[in-house]
Amino acid sequence: MSDRFMTQMQMARNNIVSEEMRICALGEGVPVEVIMEKLANGQAVIPKNRLHNISKPKVIGSNFSVKVNANIGTSFGYSSLKEELEKLNVALSAGADSVMVLSTWGNLSEMRRIIVENSPVPVGSVPIYDSAVKAYEEGKNVIDFSEKDFIDMVYAHAKDGIDFMTIHVGITKDVLKKLKDSKRILKIVSRGGAIIAGWMIKNNRENPFYEHFDEILDIAAEFDITLSLGDGMRPGAVVDATDPQQLEELFVMSQLVDRAREKGVQVMLEGPGHVPLNEIETNVKLMKKIGKGAPIFLLGPLPTDRGVGHDHIVSAVGAAFAAYHGCDFICYVTPAEHVALPDVEDVKYGVIASKIAAVIADVARGNKKALELEHQMALARARFDWNKMFELAIHSEDAKKKLKSRPYESEGCSMCGPFCAIKVTKDFSEGKITVMM
Amino acid sequence: MSDRFMTQMQMARNNIVSEEMRICALGEGVPVEVIMEKLANGQAVIPKNRLHNISKPKVIGSNFSVKVNANIGTSFGYSSLKEELEKLNVALSAGADSVMVLSTWGNLSEMRRIIVENSPVPVGSVPIYDSAVKAYEEGKNVIDFSEKDFIDMVYAHAKDGIDFMTIHVGITKDVLKKLKDSKRILKIVSRGGAIIAGWMIKNNRENPFYEHFDEILDIAAEFDITLSLGDGMRPGAVVDATDPQQLEELFVMSQLVDRAREKGVQVMLEGPGHVPLNEIETNVKLMKKIGKGAPIFLLGPLPTDRGVGHDHIVSAVGAAFAAYHGCDFICYVTPAEHVALPDVEDVKYGVIASKIAAVIADVARGNKKALELEHQMALARARFDWNKMFELAIHSEDAKKKLKSRPYESEGCSMCGPFCAIKVTKDFSEGKITVMM
Repeated sequence: MSDRFMTQMQMARNNIVSEEMRICALGEGVPVEVIMEKLANGQAVIPKNRLHNISKPKVIGSNFSVKVNANIGTSFGYSSLKEELEKLNVALSAGADSVMVLSTWGNLSEMRRIIVENSPVPVGSVPIYDSAVKAYEEGKNVIDFSEKDFIDMVYAHAKDGIDFMTIHVGITKDVLKKLKDSKRILKIVSRGGAIIAGWMIKNNRENPFYEHFDEILDIAAEFDITLSLGDGMRPGAVVDATDPQQLEELFVMSQLVDRAREKGVQVMLEGPGHVPLNEIETNVKLMKKIGKGAPIFLLGPLPTDRGVGHDHIVSAVGAAFAAYHGCDFICYVTPAEHVALPDVEDVKYGVIASKIAAVIADVARGNKKALELEHQMALARARFDWNKMFELAIHSEDAKKKLKSRPYESEGCSMCGPFCAIKVTKDFSEGKITVMM
Repeated sequence: MSDRFMTQMQMARNNIVSEEMRICALGEGVPVEVIMEKLANGQAVIPKNRLHNISKPKVIGSNFSVKVNANIGTSFGYSSLKEELEKLNVALSAGADSVMVLSTWGNLSEMRRIIVENSPVPVGSVPIYDSAVKAYEEGKNVIDFSEKDFIDMVYAHAKDGIDFMTIHVGITKDVLKKLKDSKRILKIVSRGGAIIAGWMIKNNRENPFYEHFDEILDIAAEFDITLSLGDGMRPGAVVDATDPQQLEELFVMSQLVDRAREKGVQVMLEGPGHVPLNEIETNVKLMKKIGKGAPIFLLGPLPTDRGVGHDHIVSAVGAAFAAYHGCDFICYVTPAEHVALPDVEDVKYGVIASKIAAVIADVARGNKKALELEHQMALARARFDWNKMFELAIHSEDAKKKLKSRPYESEGCSMCGPFCAIKVTKDFSEGKITVMM
């Protein structure tokens, strides 16, 4: 580690303005001092590995605009670098603020490096997957790997240029013991969480991430990895939500947030999962409180389990509501969730749905840029200015196709034709109708 | 009017149990007395024209399950009865609780009667459209029709068997005058509202629906039409939401609710429109309060204007939130909203998105049936019981296709393959992994 190297948090604390801070301040439309203050106290993060040349850094947290992450990656039997690059590109062009490479098949390190190289936005990963894949490839059970693997894989991912990593550090022996006696229907639905839990149970050992958290912090500080404290105990069913198990893990995370901040390591908290709409506000506010204001990264949340095939929509509802109440970072859910590995089209629609949620939340939170865009959209509609409407749209491709496929030749569209309310109103406003009033 | 004929409201008040009440009570899983009490005091409606033989009546309002309406209908240049019947069928099979026939081209009365005949669920309409279409067909401006038309069209639709009708009765001269001086960007976006406003301005007259509301009530009582008081002043842009214009109209509606109830006419209130997420709760609660607990029927609401091409998702977010706070009846929005007349596929995806919103709200509102289905879904997931999952899904078609197209041959799916959290957890729970703990 270079003596001069500092994490974004350390720079902010030392009043050093990084290039990333400057770009983020411009993007958010706030003075760079605001970004620095939030980085310094841990209420915001800028994930950026010192080895990754990021042209579009993102600030996540506090009241900054809501960000969207897209998970890509291969799976057993479905491993194509070409397709992964396509997924990356479609995610970026749909507006993803980051991607996570969650590959579990193929040459994992090579794919990771290539995605990092090609990504102008932060790239995340879950290092423990590699240990499970290695075990499986060697014909062993997926949890048959060594304690050393935990740390080694984090280091390997750091060297590959990964900007943020999910570390399921909150599943302690104590938490697992309580889980055993719980009435949860779906005990663990986190892939990384289940692997670590399995490892702990098989070996009758404490979670190595927890035991060796200082080592993890050292690696994170060396590369400026943003740690994303993974919620291995996230509920996987609406009826399992907001239970003591989930909260026990959150309490563990709470202490680790302090330890990360002491070492100048950027940290955020991951959260549920499947949560009914009436419990989302409580979940987010509790995470913010117990997590000491650290940025919150939610997967979903899904407020019903019955939307299979359309879980991107279910998730948009949960995410918009969560972000409105303070969630900073939305992990997308694709239409393929719960049934298959997402393909390129699933990635696209997953990002679009999450971007919609992010925009809705930005507007509701009073984000000035977001409100200004809504204002412009209203003006464009009033003027039947289709080009401007499409330019302002979150994703205009499908709308353009529809407009073209079922056109109406005058002002307005084929929905209302000559009976368009805006047209009729315009006519009498402009005196095209003889007005007696 | 037969001496013996009573509206559902009048029957409930006279302690007469109708067949529709019985079916609805079964559907909701509540004693019929609960339905009757809410019908009697106007907090719920069962739309059913005496001439329409409805096999699947729906109770809308109070804390009953949230219902979904699908708008179908032709438009200038796009008029096919065959396609409209397809839309009806796809809407029904996706779970629509009602349809509105909003045709503005072709043989309107014939199409209406055929849809009514073929619909086992309530059918709604907007009678004033017919007047505008007639004027346009005669080469006149769409607002060139007679005062008599207002009443005649309502009667014609009643005789066609329409169960509920949107009557834009709240746009009074006073409301319009205030609109003129307002800073709204999109003055009127309601098609019916704009036509009526244009008519009023051109003729310098009060809104005939308002002036002749007693006659409208008499027709409604004669056929048991549920009146849906249309919000001609609904905001058409997020930046226009919750303004005095919208509320002035609501205040007019408030008085009309009383007058309808006095005559035993079932009535509900229509609402916005485009509303930012942070104003939806206020809007719904204000409508419930000012509307004296009458059922609320919302179009959207859309919490961003920038989702064009994906407005079904935008609307699902707004509708779930609105229904959680008390909205009873969701009017779907399709992916074609703001760009084109919806086709059959748009209708399908519009209904699915709204059903998702309705289910999310039902769960959040603590609806027992909805919670039981979530419970069963969690059990099915834990058991990898795909058939049961699909059976419980809101709409399983797309999920089935995805599962088939990218299969995984063991338990679980291609998302996680051998690293499935549920599988790994199951293995160590069942002792398939040697456990030392």
